[in-house]
Amino acid sequence: MADNTWASAITSVVPNQIRVRGYRIDELMGRVSFGEAVYLILRGELPGAAVGRLMEAMIVASIDHGVTPPSTLAVRNAATTGAPLNACIAAGALAVNRHHGGAVEDCMRLLARGAERVAAGETAASAAGALVAAEKAAARRLPGFGHRVHTDDPRSHRLLALAKEAGAAGPHVAVAEAIVAALARGGKALARGGKALPLNVDGAIAAVLADLGFAPELANGFFILARTAGWMAHVAEELSREKPMRRIDQQSCAYDGPPPRDVA
Amino acid sequence: MADNTWASAITSVVPNQIRVRGYRIDELMGRVSFGEAVYLILRGELPGAAVGRLMEAMIVASIDHGVTPPSTLAVRNAATTGAPLNACIAAGALAVNRHHGGAVEDCMRLLARGAERVAAGETAASAAGALVAAEKAAARRLPGFGHRVHTDDPRSHRLLALAKEAGAAGPHVAVAEAIVAALARGGKALARGGKALPLNVDGAIAAVLADLGFAPELANGFFILARTAGWMAHVAEELSREKPMRRIDQQSCAYDGPPPRDVA
Amino acid sequence: MADNTWASAITSVVPNQIRVRGYRIDELMGRVSFGEAVYLILRGELPGAAVGRLMEAMIVASIDHGVTPPSTLAVRNAATTGAPLNACIAAGALAVNRHHGGAVEDCMRLLARGAERVAAGETAASAAGALVAAEKAAARRLPGFGHRVHTDDPRSHRLLALAKEAGAAGPHVAVAEAIVAALARGGKALARGGKALPLNVDGAIAAVLADLGFAPELANGFFILARTAGWMAHVAEELSREKPMRRIDQQSCAYDGPPPRDVA
Amino acid sequence: MADNTWASAITSVVPNQIRVRGYRIDELMGRVSFGEAVYLILRGELPGAAVGRLMEAMIVASIDHGVTPPSTLAVRNAATTGAPLNACIAAGALAVNRHHGGAVEDCMRLLARGAERVAAGETAASAAGALVAAEKAAARRLPGFGHRVHTDDPRSHRLLALAKEAGAAGPHVAVAEAIVAALARGGKALARGGKALPLNVDGAIAAVLADLGFAPELANGFFILARTAGWMAHVAEELSREKPMRRIDQQSCAYDGPPPRDVA
Repeated sequence: MADNTWASAITSVVPNQIRVRGYRIDELMGRVSFGEAVYLILRGELPGAAVGRLMEAMIVASIDHGVTPPSTLAVRNAATTGAPLNACIAAGALAVNRHHGGAVEDCMRLLARGAERVAAGETAASAAGALVAAEKAAARRLPGFGHRVHTDDPRSHRLLALAKEAGAAGPHVAVAEAIVAALARGGKALARGGKALPLNVDGAIAAVLADLGFAPELANGFFILARTAGWMAHVAEELSREKPMRRIDQQSCAYDGPPPRDVA
Repeated sequence: MADNTWASAITSVVPNQIRVRGYRIDELMGRVSFGEAVYLILRGELPGAAVGRLMEAMIVASIDHGVTPPSTLAVRNAATTGAPLNACIAAGALAVNRHHGGAVEDCMRLLARGAERVAAGETAASAAGALVAAEKAAARRLPGFGHRVHTDDPRSHRLLALAKEAGAAGPHVAVAEAIVAALARGGKALARGGKALPLNVDGAIAAVLADLGFAPELANGFFILARTAGWMAHVAEELSREKPMRRIDQQSCAYDGPPPRDVA
Repeated sequence: MADNTWASAITSVVPNQIRVRGYRIDELMGRVSFGEAVYLILRGELPGAAVGRLMEAMIVASIDHGVTPPSTLAVRNAATTGAPLNACIAAGALAVNRHHGGAVEDCMRLLARGAERVAAGETAASAAGALVAAEKAAARRLPGFGHRVHTDDPRSHRLLALAKEAGAAGPHVAVAEAIVAALARGGKALARGGKALPLNVDGAIAAVLADLGFAPELANGFFILARTAGWMAHVAEELSREKPMRRIDQQSCAYDGPPPRDVA
Repeated sequence: MADNTWASAITSVVPNQIRVRGYRIDELMGRVSFGEAVYLILRGELPGAAVGRLMEAMIVASIDHGVTPPSTLAVRNAATTGAPLNACIAAGALAVNRHHGGAVEDCMRLLARGAERVAAGETAASAAGALVAAEKAAARRLPGFGHRVHTDDPRSHRLLALAKEAGAAGPHVAVAEAIVAALARGGKALARGGKALPLNVDGAIAAVLADLGFAPELANGFFILARTAGWMAHVAEELSREKPMRRIDQQSCAYDGPPPRDVA
């Protein structure tokens, strides 16, 4: 019936030909990176290779963070009960919410407010100062700033550097950096419990995603996509090294993998 | 207590330093592709760049297949009820099972039986013939061969060509190709309902994953990882173009995206 | 470490003795109904038997609604791909959201606003009129009123009658009924598309849950709990009557179960 | 199109009339217990009231077991990340698998083998001895016997007593009890680590479900259905008593609910 017709602009499938946003998928294979393909399917156009590399760096940054994140514990916990791999991954995805992974989306919205001020003529420093003051007045934490483990997150520095190299750093990155500067100026008074509030990896990803033009609503999807690779490794390790139905105590885990080494 | 101690060889996290399999994640960012990083986290070592590109091509091959796969319908169906993105993705992952996506794992096990024969001295053709005969005798379908839509899947040809270029095609690819030849020789008698049984994309991915040394148990994880990008696009499109709580009729959907175009 | 200690007031477990809210679970078995046990575990005290029966009637009301609800389609869709039963149920739960099942929670919040007015001295009719006017002015639908299939939902009448029999109908039920009366007086002007807006089953459950003192946040849990029984029946039927990987067209389904019959 | 037509025998829905297995749902409400309704929707016929009470006792037995089961930890873990209630429940369901909750299904299959021997003329004692010997020879654990906490599970005794009262205890219950006797005779040699192997609650539920004629494939659905009530209580408690993103250490939890009390 006519009233159930609908349309999709993502992928066309006819016998022996699958096209994503108009491009044959077999032509994309080997010619564009996964980062470019992800950008393509979400935005509708292929980015340049530099943006593709930036997309990949962003995904690589989120690939794993050891055994303590709640989503990874959810994955391990499901695995120890005998859940199949897809259910373990689903359990991980279900643990990615406002308080875990959700800072990317919240930070994107924060930076968007700053970028609007910049577009209206303010400097990034002024916009950042206004945002910090507003959030402080509302007694809200700044999403994307501060980390429970890292006082100076190396992933953030690297990602912003890559964004600049790719020519993809815009007002959202500028506002993010200006907030860091404002917080440093503000000192202890602005920091949480007297600790520094650096840009964390969620904040850096938020700034880059926003400058690339992605909608905040998609943010936790990138995290899930990247972390799926890490979760696969955790499930494989759980099954190969541990007994079923064990009690998983996150604090009793030691790392016994390869020693520190450098990328050649 | 001592009896709860355990170890993980995946990722070490200390303040301001995260290392995946020994490599600093901020060094990996921008220096290795996502395909290389996925290989690293799952296998413990960085592959060469060629294998990294092959990994990416394999993931790109699975990124989307339009609105009709049950997992994508599950994602759309969750989205129309108002589910958040992570729950939509989880619903998609839960629909990736034996009958949808599961052919990769089953085909990996089939090809492993063939590769064992090859390792024991048989030719790939002989091994393929034995497998086809055995499956026919057991009245089992050959997983990874034949497709409900495609009689000659372009993704399969492309992926095997890339595997050969990367020097990564081994006995599993050889057996897969030998099975295709055996089925072609067998003609209608061996084909399903008189139709040809080409190597489908699941079969090609199975051959490549097996030759790269991945365990069959991980197979549907790659599918979920890749398709997460597609699912994100479907959720975004559902929310931007459709009303909540609509009845989603997969056969009433027309493609209205960009017209056919070539990768530059 | 001391800083990880926490407490739970739900269930104590020591060898050979499990107590829920203080009661031995083996004493509860056979002595209280499931409805009483659900009330107990959520509220901390056993209700009278009449309230237990009301709880059960509420759950029975939600046990199934055929094949068309999105959550049931999600369950069937997962089952046809080969998902295990627990994953099918999880897929169903993930499709219970704001637009499907969520009206109970929203209606509870609406009725709470009415009950506050009643507590402050207004009549239920006056409170209802104010709510209807406010929602109309805000161009919002009234959650819990109107149904895509039923113009006069028999489950609603029955549930409110049972609530009154149990002595459990309070201001929320009164406001719900007053809203129905207000809508009837308002006629076409207030109704959606000129249709009547009866109290639907979500609205009746909302009124009863609210008068029993449950928090709105729990509302969709009751729906999931009840519907799990229905979903189990749908999975069993899917596996016993249908082939894997079928296309599930909700409009092509006919009922072929027992003919109409009366409860003895 | 004709080839998509299918049928369902569960629930018919026409405007203002919903019938489950032929009965009007509004007539069922208040007239049958939830246990009777669950039996009806799964088996197609209303049971007697005694079987309904047995069904309810079985579900009450599974309603909660404190904070340590992996599924409850999954629920709490999801809740602390900010997951909505339905996602918390889904995470719990995904942790109910072979090694957690799955013993019911496995035990049903074991008891079915025993019941077949009884049907063929053996005594329950003889059948039990054969099963114990076979499982011992195969170095398999007996599913449904033994418990990590309880040496003598009070829920099992109670459930079997209620089954006998309801006239619903048949060969599966007989074989289960005969296995307990065989294990007691076998002494330490048969017990795990020298411990006694009583019938645990999973085993008792398995025996009752099997004698009631349920398929083993449905077993973990009953567990999920019952435990959903417990999970709701855990989510409510987590949100009301704890901070987001806390580390949930199952061994650091103390019970602080009502003191022991008796059902009046």
